[in-house]
Amino acid sequence: MSDTVVVGLDVGGTSTRALAVTLAGERLGTGRAGGGNPTSHGAGRAAAELLTALRAALSGVDPARVRAGTIGLAGAGRLLADPAGRAAFDGAWRDAGLRCPYAVHGDALVAYASGTPHAHGTVLIAGTGAIAAQVRDLRLDRVADGHGWLLGDAGSGFWLGREAVRRLLADLDAGRAPGPLGRRVLAELLGVERVADRPRDTVDAVVQAVTRRPPVELSRLAPLVVAAAVAAEPVAAGLIGAAAGHLADSAARIRPPGATDPVVLGGGLLTGDTPLAAAVGAELARRWPDAPLTTAGDGAAGAAWLAARDLPEVADPAALHALLVPATP
Amino acid sequence: MSDTVVVGLDVGGTSTRALAVTLAGERLGTGRAGGGNPTSHGAGRAAAELLTALRAALSGVDPARVRAGTIGLAGAGRLLADPAGRAAFDGAWRDAGLRCPYAVHGDALVAYASGTPHAHGTVLIAGTGAIAAQVRDLRLDRVADGHGWLLGDAGSGFWLGREAVRRLLADLDAGRAPGPLGRRVLAELLGVERVADRPRDTVDAVVQAVTRRPPVELSRLAPLVVAAAVAAEPVAAGLIGAAAGHLADSAARIRPPGATDPVVLGGGLLTGDTPLAAAVGAELARRWPDAPLTTAGDGAAGAAWLAARDLPEVADPAALHALLVPATP
Repeated sequence: MSDTVVVGLDVGGTSTRALAVTLAGERLGTGRAGGGNPTSHGAGRAAAELLTALRAALSGVDPARVRAGTIGLAGAGRLLADPAGRAAFDGAWRDAGLRCPYAVHGDALVAYASGTPHAHGTVLIAGTGAIAAQVRDLRLDRVADGHGWLLGDAGSGFWLGREAVRRLLADLDAGRAPGPLGRRVLAELLGVERVADRPRDTVDAVVQAVTRRPPVELSRLAPLVVAAAVAAEPVAAGLIGAAAGHLADSAARIRPPGATDPVVLGGGLLTGDTPLAAAVGAELARRWPDAPLTTAGDGAAGAAWLAARDLPEVADPAALHALLVPATP
Repeated sequence: MSDTVVVGLDVGGTSTRALAVTLAGERLGTGRAGGGNPTSHGAGRAAAELLTALRAALSGVDPARVRAGTIGLAGAGRLLADPAGRAAFDGAWRDAGLRCPYAVHGDALVAYASGTPHAHGTVLIAGTGAIAAQVRDLRLDRVADGHGWLLGDAGSGFWLGREAVRRLLADLDAGRAPGPLGRRVLAELLGVERVADRPRDTVDAVVQAVTRRPPVELSRLAPLVVAAAVAAEPVAAGLIGAAAGHLADSAARIRPPGATDPVVLGGGLLTGDTPLAAAVGAELARRWPDAPLTTAGDGAAGAAWLAARDLPEVADPAALHALLVPATP
């Protein structure tokens, strides 16, 4: 049984990560490549990054030992519906020397599986965007938000960044001096904290600095909000609280009241010791007091576990989860 | 004195309108041309539309009789700061046979002047976008919002359209059947009111239908919200109330508490007998109970009055306003 190897891949917008691991939990290789989201980068580019990460993870591993694989990626449904995209991924899989089948799942399911082996539960993700999903029998069931920055992503990094700018503009309109968060936003966008003698000139400069770039890049201001909230800046603390409320609202659209199965928090804003993670945790504990709360870990390991658990030699998927997926601190 | 003619122009994103009128209020000619906003169309195109409208208004008028002119347009400040843009407008003015000077003002000031001759007051405009401005001595003083759809325009047509889609998506996420407004939005965006067997397919189709077009086109859904609110649809009524609150908040950033000078309502959503105009009127009356409320009228006439009032032969600008600017019903 320890001869058997599984492969997990976590394909994100900015990086692709691969893991080859035995059913005993021995990590044989890892690989990393550039962003491979087929929706934003095209399936051909995504497949090329996939191959790079796969080859690195499999260097020194006999590919005949690999018995199963799972690829987690955003927009999985769109890839599966696109014959050309599917063919590009098939080609990368073969070019890596793999002959076993592989499954494609949404990145939300892989994040969930990196946090818990429980068959049913909820995953709530906040990074640049935001999405909540209900998991049933380790399949994504219903989904809330993930609607993108124009229509949704409430409580995401984009949302925090945009709201920080909106609060700054409201201060400037009203002739109020910006507070600590507003000054940090000014410094980031304009290079200076000072408001012009005509505050409307600063308003115009801020609007132009934001609209010169793709809207989603407002999310780069989210770390300023997080840092200011750590320092108890009141505007930032208010935004973090509002974001936590939006994220819990999204979860509530799909998660029944009184549910006791686990909630997994994922995405850059909810993993690690961030004020948003703490605020969301408190909000979830208030709404679902009996639900265990865990944090997403290594997505490639979660994907590898999803691949392995259906193999005939796996008797106890939960025990295998403990072996394959490192516990998140 | 009745020999003296003034010219007013109202240059908007979708149309340019010109009026030639005597100081006795005799309307000698009007002209209409395509959108001439120099920010969105370029100064050359804007100047060409200006010339078309001017020539139509002046057909049969001896241009030597024209003693003053005013052009109102969005982005007036940017035009004035751009020598090439200013030269293009100078050229159009000369090509129309005019030798008198002209002034360029923001469209918000012209809207204000089309509603009142009072030297000080507030103008609140909601169309595709939204802006509030304080007027002092018939000059734009402080401005609130007008920050564009990505960062502002709270309570605008864009805002109403986006919120209508967001409410629809929230219903679909939660597995609730869309209400009357949601069904109208579905019909507008997808051509059918029916939700797919997998509601997430409808969610994806809605998001794609919106993101295929420029974001600002969400404002084309605003009339659906207005019509549904007229029919007392509760979601639409709630959105109209929230939009009125946002618009009044923008006014409150620049208008002192207790102010008693007039407020002029402008823009397609606040002129005419719309539920948003009524809701904003009620909200303003609550916050500034002693302020007269008027509605913007013919912008070209407002511009003509701004041009005329500084002429030496004008003794009573308020009386001239009554002659030049038709009362709004």
